[in-house]
Amino acid sequence: MSDLKTSLAAGRHYLAIPGPSVMPDRVLNAMHAAAPNIYTGPLLDMMDGLVSDLKAVARTQQNVAIYVSNGHGGWEASLVNTVTPGEKVLVLVNGMFGQGWANHATGLGLDVEVMDFGKRATWDFDRISARLTADNGAIKAILCAHVDTSTSYKNDIAALRRVLDRVGHDALLLVDCIASMGCDRFEMDAWGVDVAVSASQKGLMTPPGIGLVWFSDKAAQRQKSLKQVSPYWNWAPRANPEGFYQYFNGTAPTHHLLGLREALTMLVHEEGIENAWARHAVLARAVWAACGVWGQGGPVDMQVPDAVDRGHAVTGVSIGAPNGTALRDWLSENLGVTLGIGLGIVPAGDPDWHGHFRIGHMGHVNAHMVLGTLGAIDTGLKALGIPHAQGALTAASRVCAGEMI
Amino acid sequence: MSDLKTSLAAGRHYLAIPGPSVMPDRVLNAMHAAAPNIYTGPLLDMMDGLVSDLKAVARTQQNVAIYVSNGHGGWEASLVNTVTPGEKVLVLVNGMFGQGWANHATGLGLDVEVMDFGKRATWDFDRISARLTADNGAIKAILCAHVDTSTSYKNDIAALRRVLDRVGHDALLLVDCIASMGCDRFEMDAWGVDVAVSASQKGLMTPPGIGLVWFSDKAAQRQKSLKQVSPYWNWAPRANPEGFYQYFNGTAPTHHLLGLREALTMLVHEEGIENAWARHAVLARAVWAACGVWGQGGPVDMQVPDAVDRGHAVTGVSIGAPNGTALRDWLSENLGVTLGIGLGIVPAGDPDWHGHFRIGHMGHVNAHMVLGTLGAIDTGLKALGIPHAQGALTAASRVCAGEMI
Amino acid sequence: MSDLKTSLAAGRHYLAIPGPSVMPDRVLNAMHAAAPNIYTGPLLDMMDGLVSDLKAVARTQQNVAIYVSNGHGGWEASLVNTVTPGEKVLVLVNGMFGQGWANHATGLGLDVEVMDFGKRATWDFDRISARLTADNGAIKAILCAHVDTSTSYKNDIAALRRVLDRVGHDALLLVDCIASMGCDRFEMDAWGVDVAVSASQKGLMTPPGIGLVWFSDKAAQRQKSLKQVSPYWNWAPRANPEGFYQYFNGTAPTHHLLGLREALTMLVHEEGIENAWARHAVLARAVWAACGVWGQGGPVDMQVPDAVDRGHAVTGVSIGAPNGTALRDWLSENLGVTLGIGLGIVPAGDPDWHGHFRIGHMGHVNAHMVLGTLGAIDTGLKALGIPHAQGALTAASRVCAGEMI
Amino acid sequence: MSDLKTSLAAGRHYLAIPGPSVMPDRVLNAMHAAAPNIYTGPLLDMMDGLVSDLKAVARTQQNVAIYVSNGHGGWEASLVNTVTPGEKVLVLVNGMFGQGWANHATGLGLDVEVMDFGKRATWDFDRISARLTADNGAIKAILCAHVDTSTSYKNDIAALRRVLDRVGHDALLLVDCIASMGCDRFEMDAWGVDVAVSASQKGLMTPPGIGLVWFSDKAAQRQKSLKQVSPYWNWAPRANPEGFYQYFNGTAPTHHLLGLREALTMLVHEEGIENAWARHAVLARAVWAACGVWGQGGPVDMQVPDAVDRGHAVTGVSIGAPNGTALRDWLSENLGVTLGIGLGIVPAGDPDWHGHFRIGHMGHVNAHMVLGTLGAIDTGLKALGIPHAQGALTAASRVCAGEMI
Repeated sequence: MSDLKTSLAAGRHYLAIPGPSVMPDRVLNAMHAAAPNIYTGPLLDMMDGLVSDLKAVARTQQNVAIYVSNGHGGWEASLVNTVTPGEKVLVLVNGMFGQGWANHATGLGLDVEVMDFGKRATWDFDRISARLTADNGAIKAILCAHVDTSTSYKNDIAALRRVLDRVGHDALLLVDCIASMGCDRFEMDAWGVDVAVSASQKGLMTPPGIGLVWFSDKAAQRQKSLKQVSPYWNWAPRANPEGFYQYFNGTAPTHHLLGLREALTMLVHEEGIENAWARHAVLARAVWAACGVWGQGGPVDMQVPDAVDRGHAVTGVSIGAPNGTALRDWLSENLGVTLGIGLGIVPAGDPDWHGHFRIGHMGHVNAHMVLGTLGAIDTGLKALGIPHAQGALTAASRVCAGEMI
Repeated sequence: MSDLKTSLAAGRHYLAIPGPSVMPDRVLNAMHAAAPNIYTGPLLDMMDGLVSDLKAVARTQQNVAIYVSNGHGGWEASLVNTVTPGEKVLVLVNGMFGQGWANHATGLGLDVEVMDFGKRATWDFDRISARLTADNGAIKAILCAHVDTSTSYKNDIAALRRVLDRVGHDALLLVDCIASMGCDRFEMDAWGVDVAVSASQKGLMTPPGIGLVWFSDKAAQRQKSLKQVSPYWNWAPRANPEGFYQYFNGTAPTHHLLGLREALTMLVHEEGIENAWARHAVLARAVWAACGVWGQGGPVDMQVPDAVDRGHAVTGVSIGAPNGTALRDWLSENLGVTLGIGLGIVPAGDPDWHGHFRIGHMGHVNAHMVLGTLGAIDTGLKALGIPHAQGALTAASRVCAGEMI
Repeated sequence: MSDLKTSLAAGRHYLAIPGPSVMPDRVLNAMHAAAPNIYTGPLLDMMDGLVSDLKAVARTQQNVAIYVSNGHGGWEASLVNTVTPGEKVLVLVNGMFGQGWANHATGLGLDVEVMDFGKRATWDFDRISARLTADNGAIKAILCAHVDTSTSYKNDIAALRRVLDRVGHDALLLVDCIASMGCDRFEMDAWGVDVAVSASQKGLMTPPGIGLVWFSDKAAQRQKSLKQVSPYWNWAPRANPEGFYQYFNGTAPTHHLLGLREALTMLVHEEGIENAWARHAVLARAVWAACGVWGQGGPVDMQVPDAVDRGHAVTGVSIGAPNGTALRDWLSENLGVTLGIGLGIVPAGDPDWHGHFRIGHMGHVNAHMVLGTLGAIDTGLKALGIPHAQGALTAASRVCAGEMI
Repeated sequence: MSDLKTSLAAGRHYLAIPGPSVMPDRVLNAMHAAAPNIYTGPLLDMMDGLVSDLKAVARTQQNVAIYVSNGHGGWEASLVNTVTPGEKVLVLVNGMFGQGWANHATGLGLDVEVMDFGKRATWDFDRISARLTADNGAIKAILCAHVDTSTSYKNDIAALRRVLDRVGHDALLLVDCIASMGCDRFEMDAWGVDVAVSASQKGLMTPPGIGLVWFSDKAAQRQKSLKQVSPYWNWAPRANPEGFYQYFNGTAPTHHLLGLREALTMLVHEEGIENAWARHAVLARAVWAACGVWGQGGPVDMQVPDAVDRGHAVTGVSIGAPNGTALRDWLSENLGVTLGIGLGIVPAGDPDWHGHFRIGHMGHVNAHMVLGTLGAIDTGLKALGIPHAQGALTAASRVCAGEMI
């Protein structure tokens, strides 16, 4: 019987983790290319459009720098270009990645103040407002995640901007959009964001290897006042290059550019960013509907209680130890689905670490993929005897059918 | 709203048709190769193992010929090597492809007698037995499908062999395994099959372009008695080549060989053919469980009433016109899933043609893929308002969890 | 020292054989595709253009049938649709493949008369004319190769047509263009060819697996008079299909169609067939110039003495046994180049078999590739101490530079 | 005529630039992979071997850090981990990239002293020795290129180490091996190198996107004394990770790892690094032999006069303006070969800029590729009427045949 179950994993394995996400064949095919000419020709000619499309994704008319790096490189770039060692930054945290960015800032010699709202709460804007009101201009930048991949909390960036404006604080607003860009609505210019950080491997459907930093003209001005900016992270030549190599401080990431070009064609030109956001919204609601039903008869519990606070690209779930790890392992071995590990809810050594998992539903994702993942979880709950209410999959298909539940 | 629905089809499109089936990335990667050396080296060296693995898939110790052709080419090869124009063949039909093979035999100048059991019935072994008993040796070969892809009927080949043996009829037994090979248990030698025909694009997980004909030593003897066999279809040099080109009567299908090699490695050496059959069996039961539930509240009705008669690689469904076409179109446009058309149940011009569809679940397929397809159908039924009972997806996940329902 | 030499073969191996030829990355990428929808969509929509481009390559306004087969399948198709067992065909032979087609015709039960001009001669039109004049209408078809890949002789098809017309013989004119299509000028309609046969893996730059048969309206009429045509080879539905599957007598060769589409885009729409012919002509002259110089100081000798009789896609060379095999082996092991074996000049067992090789220069080929191959041969001659005059490579580069030598 | 010439560029375009270099199909295929599991499985399991093979390539038993970056990122990492703003570094320059690294160091706030030996000279060890002797310990690190890609000078690192040892200077020795790693013999431990910097896209045959920094235990000790090291560049966790993500300070460059794994398998395990060096040595001599002959009758002149000072992966050539640009353009348009631009010999605006080019012969390169490139240059010289002596290609093939010229 176990042999038999094992064989249900043959077929195309599905990676339902919150990044690196499933990539389109078209992106991989675009990257299956001979080394291109780097002096002249198509690769150079595509840059204007690529930059323009990257701005469209973040909804900005301002600036963008492309880095050969991962998302942490984007974190470092955003800080190196805006603040100088010893300066104070305020970090709003409701998840592991918010804290991670804070730690990164500390490592760069910044004076880091963390305002931690826990793993299961939204920001307290009163607290934020009071802190900013009390500040005498020492805080040079506010760092926060749009969606924290670990908890799946989505934070209200527009509201944060309103607070800043109301109290008249001049700090730069830096937002980590690594988990949300291309998935959740993000309006850099309309929301008054100064720096947005993302990377290629989630909503942008391209292998990891590209960090992206969008920045406002205000941030660009601030950068000019800094005594020193590392040549690699310096965003000025990258955003306003005189030659092709200046986009990248040296050799271009040729194959990632080809892949990203194809991904942006799909996202911006074929589907449209608004449609992509809408797709993610429905698919997220399908996931939540299933989780909601399961939870009515057992331990399945979404990390974020209120739907309005949930990101559309990832859903954190607690299910009680050791159910989380057991479910993840069973699905991977028996059904061909890998779920995301729970990250940062409890420390790695804690036995309760095995009580969490995450469902990634970002980027190149559709109803078939999500419903298959939910079907796999429903199967796993049954196979492992984890209590749950029936009807979760029906609830998900009702959402995909257009019902508002 | 329609924009929003449309976007649920972005992501990896899923082709749930009964072949060509979803192919493993490994197979496509193996075929993404420079033109290989055809005089010496790896391509030639792999042939012994390839032939051996092909025999393992069909469970035979006898012979196999590889054709650059599709499945119809396999049909033609099987006939050209066993019977001569004017000779009589008996064709057992319960689906469009059985009839298609009969028509092909007619086109080759054979004297074709069709025993048609309709679209919704198994073979009547009494009728078959009576006919064979009455025959005076005129019938040189019996043609039949193991699984007819159009109706999804699976026929009992071992029982047919027993009938032949019981009545002492010497006709060759030719079986079309195009839809079943690698998916449903098939035991060429144990069942006394003389010729089995298949192709690369279904259970063998390789693009269309290879026809396969396994043949018994008895059939090989018969072939030697024929006055003329076309050089292209002649299976003798293909099965016992003196040089590489003789395997293929000329230029080798280099890239298909590379793909087929990878597919057979997965099927025979990694998963094991018995495990693959078991996987298909469970996934088929998951499909049937869902169809069964849907049908309790509406028009969904499997083409084959009795589970024991259903093939494990494809399930034919009737749902009433125009629901079949409406559902297929809606899923393709809105959810990223393409279902198979109904084939051969009613003529193409008949309005009822739009009342049928098929679900392919063959080859490189796992629980995630099948549960996603069923979730998509459940969604479509709801979106289109086609009556159906609730709980189909739960029934499917119960099957995948190992319950015997 | 041998270790050191060995390492010069690392890098991209180059296959300089007369097919399968080097394929464009674009073709392989086009074939690296998920199983496509076969009911509707891009694959079906591309067929009209594909057929039109295939006709453009052969310069005909008449008909074309696409087969899942290799070139020998094309041979069989061409005969099955034009003549009936027992009928007489005349085969003009100056190479192994002409003889091979004759043997194939014999295998199909035709009354085959071979007019063999040897391995080192063009056709004798007086002999042909005399034979046709003497014929009383028994000869139903004339079979011949445009370029025989084994000897690299190119035959004058237009002149043969003029002979037929002059003597008023009504036989169909069937031409094997497997080695020449897309490489050497071929004008089906202007030259009065009735049937042209080719395949995907040479000038058409696609993996082996597709046979192609272009046929005249006159040939189509003849086919209608035949008592029986095998369903698989029957060109009528393939050339005038009512549905997609009729193009292929069953399942479409999906991935080959995608590859062939890309190859024809490059050949017909981007380069232009006339430019491709011109490219092959210059590259062939570069090869010949090098061979000519080598031969002034040693045993290198082109199989075809007169340049006007040489095909532009392959050059047969004799070099004395065992030099041919030694050179081939040395280049493959030491320099990363595989040359074609000598085929059919002497029997395989004859010691002199090792005195021949062929250089393929067909399809996706350019000056870099050909000059690299010639450089490798020049290196091999030196390393093995085979006498040759110096300056061969300079002669080749002069040709590529536009000099008429 | 020009149409005709143009068509000689069809076929596989060849990029003969000094990086990004031609990549093996196997590397690209390895990267054509679905997003892999980043928690467990093959990707994680391969890391030990990858690190071990990277050390084998640089001939060190010490440490290596892998960066998601390009080569300039490697420059930055090497400096951030060894020196602190305000500290003095001495940079030995004989090419544009040596100067570039110096500029990068200045941008990081270091006190940079450049010792420039011009574009056409080796280092003057007496000058270096005198400077180090005069130093009172202020110089913390010496920066230099093993091979400067712009001039193609190869510098004697072992001799530099001997000077350091002789004068008893304790500065760290940092070496840019971007153009040479995997191509020219490099012995990190035996030569007493403290930090070696390279990147994926040249001798390592993988697309750009990975920076590599090997470092000695001495350098590791120095790093621990630094007050601050940027988290992204910090090599300590990367070289001694507790978890997979620490190798990369965040998300792994999944696809580059897959590609690099394949490339190292070819380089280290199949060919062997010593054989790869030997291969590059012979191919370089073939290039030089051709250049030497050309120059006997015209303006072709290698940038590095003495063979012992030339790198084995790239050859800089001067040919007089505007011949360099004219030749490059003509080859690209007419023959399918792209040569490298001359870099840094004269400023970009200078008319003489058009008098230089470079030939890349690095990484996945063999005799066919190099001889084809030389043949193309020979063709271009003739077509453009640039004076040159005849016999260059023969000289190159003699070298490839094993002659020592």
